[in-house]
Amino acid sequence: MSESVILASNERLDDLMTENGLKIIQSREVFSFSLDAVLLSRFANIPKRGKMIDLCTGNGVIPMLLSTRTKAHIDAVEIQPRLADMARRSIEMNGLQNQIRIIEQDLRLYAKEAGNGVYDAVTVNPPYMPVTAGDQNENEHYAIARHEIHCTLNDVMQASARLVRPGGKVAMVHRPSRLLDIVETMRKWKLEPKRVQFVHPHANAEANMILIEAMRDGKPDIKLLPPIMVYENGVQIV
Amino acid sequence: MSESVILASNERLDDLMTENGLKIIQSREVFSFSLDAVLLSRFANIPKRGKMIDLCTGNGVIPMLLSTRTKAHIDAVEIQPRLADMARRSIEMNGLQNQIRIIEQDLRLYAKEAGNGVYDAVTVNPPYMPVTAGDQNENEHYAIARHEIHCTLNDVMQASARLVRPGGKVAMVHRPSRLLDIVETMRKWKLEPKRVQFVHPHANAEANMILIEAMRDGKPDIKLLPPIMVYENGVQIV
Repeated sequence: MSESVILASNERLDDLMTENGLKIIQSREVFSFSLDAVLLSRFANIPKRGKMIDLCTGNGVIPMLLSTRTKAHIDAVEIQPRLADMARRSIEMNGLQNQIRIIEQDLRLYAKEAGNGVYDAVTVNPPYMPVTAGDQNENEHYAIARHEIHCTLNDVMQASARLVRPGGKVAMVHRPSRLLDIVETMRKWKLEPKRVQFVHPHANAEANMILIEAMRDGKPDIKLLPPIMVYENGVQIV
Repeated sequence: MSESVILASNERLDDLMTENGLKIIQSREVFSFSLDAVLLSRFANIPKRGKMIDLCTGNGVIPMLLSTRTKAHIDAVEIQPRLADMARRSIEMNGLQNQIRIIEQDLRLYAKEAGNGVYDAVTVNPPYMPVTAGDQNENEHYAIARHEIHCTLNDVMQASARLVRPGGKVAMVHRPSRLLDIVETMRKWKLEPKRVQFVHPHANAEANMILIEAMRDGKPDIKLLPPIMVYENGVQIV
């Protein structure tokens, strides 16, 4: 399949820097993945086999990166038709259609329909920001990806708790300022936080990302992993 | 006052490494301060003037270190008579008796008696560990300092919330494994966590200490400060 067949106007093909040369369709008009997705894909404890799901998948970057780490089947849910379409084309282009399935649906509905405890693990890079008055001025695709317009933190955790099996893991990337909300919401849905890792731009900066993984019906016992520093002496090292 | 007058048997005089040469009475038989107390003394936001209180003060290391940073009056509560006595003698030896007052009492009682909101800030380095079956075998002084025998995390936060004025700060050092308990307990008593800093033995190790500061009746807005690494290339740097 040639690039001209796959790419719509204003789309480009980016290299995912994986050993097997995965490429992903991106577009400045809608949304491009960022370091958050890459770090979550590395951070998550994922099963070697079985079945897992990525919520708020966007252009499918997380399931594609996870495919290099597991033979598990990966479902991936995205509510925006344009992003779901980009994800589907990227997956086909990389020949991953037997491992990854894109589900174009509201994750709240999907969680109800799919059943309780049907996945071994969940990953999610949800919108970070509560809905605020100024959002209307923003590009709609960006607004949906950034703000809790179609799903709140509570929606995401409720859906994750339903989809994952007891003992299964839910890994999320978010903003450190939401840490306490995250912990409260996870516990509300019986997801017990087990591993936390903060990401700092550099060694002397406040954290600007949090990676957190919970276990469904787990016992309280949290580990604070060594922090990740993105830049060292001005050079990006992760 | 000569050292022989001040020191009981099995006691020694340690240098607090402050610019003004403070010294502290310690004893292996009861308890010696550790890095936790030093880091908390640096971490806490303390008023320049006014009135503050240190709970679970032990041999008084925290109020003594804080005296180098503030002109505020510092009350300090300790339940163990032997430690309170050591603290009193150290404070007198350093001529700090006009700034620091040692209160030998159960902090739960003291908080009831002292009144609501009478302090501008609270610091506390409480026992870290829940009471467990094996504690009876341990030296009693160590057991009381380490285990929640005379006060639980809930007792400490309840007392702190009562003692500090609205808008005042409560700073604590604890174990990262208790992070979620700490946050829940603080919020239960209307202490809103505002600043968190994790301490790692070195850059590739899990955190083994957490510094956390809350504001009475504060709004949710937490900052994750740059982490502290205690050792770098095997050399202690903090």
